[in-house]
Amino acid sequence: MNDHLQSWNDGPAKSAIENFVRAATDVGGPQFVPEDERIATFDQDGTMWVEHPIVTQLAFALARIFALAPENPKWNETEPFKSILARDNAAIAKCTMQDLEAIFMATHTGMATGDFHAIVSDWIAQAKDPRWNRRYTELVYQPMLEVMQYLKANGFKIYIVTGGGQAFVRTFAQQVYGIPPQRVIGSAAKTSYSHSKEGRGVLIKQPALLFFDDTAAKPEDIYLFLGRRPRAAFGNSDGDLPMLEYTSGNSGATLTMLVLHDDPEREYAYGPANGLPDVKLSPFSQATFDEAAARGWPVISMKNDWKRVFAFEA
Amino acid sequence: MNDHLQSWNDGPAKSAIENFVRAATDVGGPQFVPEDERIATFDQDGTMWVEHPIVTQLAFALARIFALAPENPKWNETEPFKSILARDNAAIAKCTMQDLEAIFMATHTGMATGDFHAIVSDWIAQAKDPRWNRRYTELVYQPMLEVMQYLKANGFKIYIVTGGGQAFVRTFAQQVYGIPPQRVIGSAAKTSYSHSKEGRGVLIKQPALLFFDDTAAKPEDIYLFLGRRPRAAFGNSDGDLPMLEYTSGNSGATLTMLVLHDDPEREYAYGPANGLPDVKLSPFSQATFDEAAARGWPVISMKNDWKRVFAFEA
Repeated sequence: MNDHLQSWNDGPAKSAIENFVRAATDVGGPQFVPEDERIATFDQDGTMWVEHPIVTQLAFALARIFALAPENPKWNETEPFKSILARDNAAIAKCTMQDLEAIFMATHTGMATGDFHAIVSDWIAQAKDPRWNRRYTELVYQPMLEVMQYLKANGFKIYIVTGGGQAFVRTFAQQVYGIPPQRVIGSAAKTSYSHSKEGRGVLIKQPALLFFDDTAAKPEDIYLFLGRRPRAAFGNSDGDLPMLEYTSGNSGATLTMLVLHDDPEREYAYGPANGLPDVKLSPFSQATFDEAAARGWPVISMKNDWKRVFAFEA
Repeated sequence: MNDHLQSWNDGPAKSAIENFVRAATDVGGPQFVPEDERIATFDQDGTMWVEHPIVTQLAFALARIFALAPENPKWNETEPFKSILARDNAAIAKCTMQDLEAIFMATHTGMATGDFHAIVSDWIAQAKDPRWNRRYTELVYQPMLEVMQYLKANGFKIYIVTGGGQAFVRTFAQQVYGIPPQRVIGSAAKTSYSHSKEGRGVLIKQPALLFFDDTAAKPEDIYLFLGRRPRAAFGNSDGDLPMLEYTSGNSGATLTMLVLHDDPEREYAYGPANGLPDVKLSPFSQATFDEAAARGWPVISMKNDWKRVFAFEA
C-alpha cells in the first residue's frame, strides 16, 4: 500500500496512520481534508528523539555552564551552578523548576540571536550521548521520521511543537527533520531589538520567558503561529494532551497518537504500564494513558510497533 | 523584462524592485539568495490598503460597539463608548491610546477564536468605506499586490507583518492577498485554552495583549515566527523602520521600501513632504523620510510611481 512506513510492524498503530491518510486524502469522501488545511504537529523530546535520562537541551545547558564558568567565578559558590561544576549528579537530579530556569537563563540569554545559533550549531555537531556514543541528532526515531515523510508526501505541512526552546531546535530542524525554522514552534525567550557596534540591527535574547510551550500553551501557541487547528498531532506526555485534544476537536479526519517508551533494550522504559520512574520534566501519567484509551487514541508501543528505533540500526 | 508590475510607471521605484529580484535570483552572482531564504514582509495598513481616515480594524471595532451596545447599557455613561454611540466624531478623534485599547478589548476579546473569525468574516464581506462606497478589501493597492505576485513568482515567501490584529487580518488574507493564516504576523491578544459545553477544546480570546506588533516588536516578532531575517520589507511609517533596518542588515540582496501617501486625488496625501496631518496611530515622520533617503531606501510615490491605485480603476 505504501512504502513509507518501512520501520513499522503491522499492527493497530501503523493501520491508524495509514487509515488517517487515506481518509484525509479521499477526494469526495466524508473526512476529506483540503490540502491547505493539512497540518500535522509533532512534539520533540520523547516523541521524535531520546529524552532520557535528560533532555538534550539540558545536556547543552550543562556543557555551556562548564564553558562559561571561567567568566563566572561566583558560580563556584552559587547553586545550582556549584553542584553542576562539582559534577554532583545526585544534587543535579534534585534540581527544582526554579533551578532549571536559572540554568537556562544563564546559558540561553544575554547574546545576539545569531551568536546563540552559532553556539548551538557548534555543540550539536560534535556532542555525543554517552550511552550510544553517537551525536544527539542520530538519536531521532526513524519510524517517526517516516511518519513525517509519509504525511509530507500526502500534502501535509509538518510542524514541531515543543516544550524545548524554539531557537535551540531551529538550529538543526532543517538538517535533521527537513523542517525549516518557521515551522518550529517552541518555548521562547523575549528578544530585544538593538544595534551592534557597527550599527547593524540585532536581536538580543533576554532573560525573560515569552512562553513555555507545554500543556495548554501548545494549542495556544499553535493558534498564535498558525491560526488554525492541526489535523494530526503526536506526543508522548501529559504536556501534549491539550495539543492532541485540540487537534481531535477538528472536523473531518484527525489523528492523535502518543509514543510509549516501553523498550528498555533498544531505548528506555518509563511512564505508564512500566512502573518505572518517569522523566521529571514531562511525565506520561497513568491518567493520560487511560484517557487516551478511553478516547480511542492509538498508543505507539516502541517495543511492539517499531521494527527499528534508530536509522543506524541494521 | 517582466509583466508583473503592470500598474507601475517606469522610474526608480519600479527599477529598484526589478533590480533586487534580478540580483537575488542570479545563480552564482554576488548577491544571490537561496530559495529557502527568500522571505519578504509587508506591513498592511497604509502599505497594502487604505488606512485613512481610520484604519479598517477601528471601523470594525466601532461597528461592533453599536452591535454590542444593547448588551452593555453601561456604555451609555462610560467613555469612550458614550461618545462613539453618540456619533460624536470630534470626541472620537481625541481618543487616547488607552481609549483605543478599551475599544479593542471590548470588541476583540471574550469570545472563542472561531466565533471571532465568524464575526470578522461577516463584517468584512459587507462593510463599505464611505468615500468609495466599496468594500474595504477592494481598497487594496493593486501595485503592491503585483509586487507580492512578482516576488512569489520568483520563489519568495510572502508575510504580512502588521500592527493590526493578526486574528483580524487572517480572516481575509487568503482571499485578498493569497496569503495563508500562518503567514500573517500581527498584534495578538492572549488566548486561554478551555472547553466548550460539549467538551471540545477551544481557545478564548483574553483581554490582555501578548504583543503590539509595531516598531521594535516587528523585527522581534519576525524572529519569533520565522527565525530569520527577511530579504525584502515594505512599510509606510515610523513603526516599520526597525523592520526595514533589520531586513537591510541581511547579507546578499536586500530591498527596503516605504510607501508615501502623496496622491490626494486618487487616495490621500499625508505624512512628510505634504505638510498634512498624519495618521495618528502610525505616523511617517520627516525624520524617517530623511533617514530612508540617507540610507538609499527607495520611497514609493503613489502619485508618480503608480499607474493605478486600485484594481477597480479603469
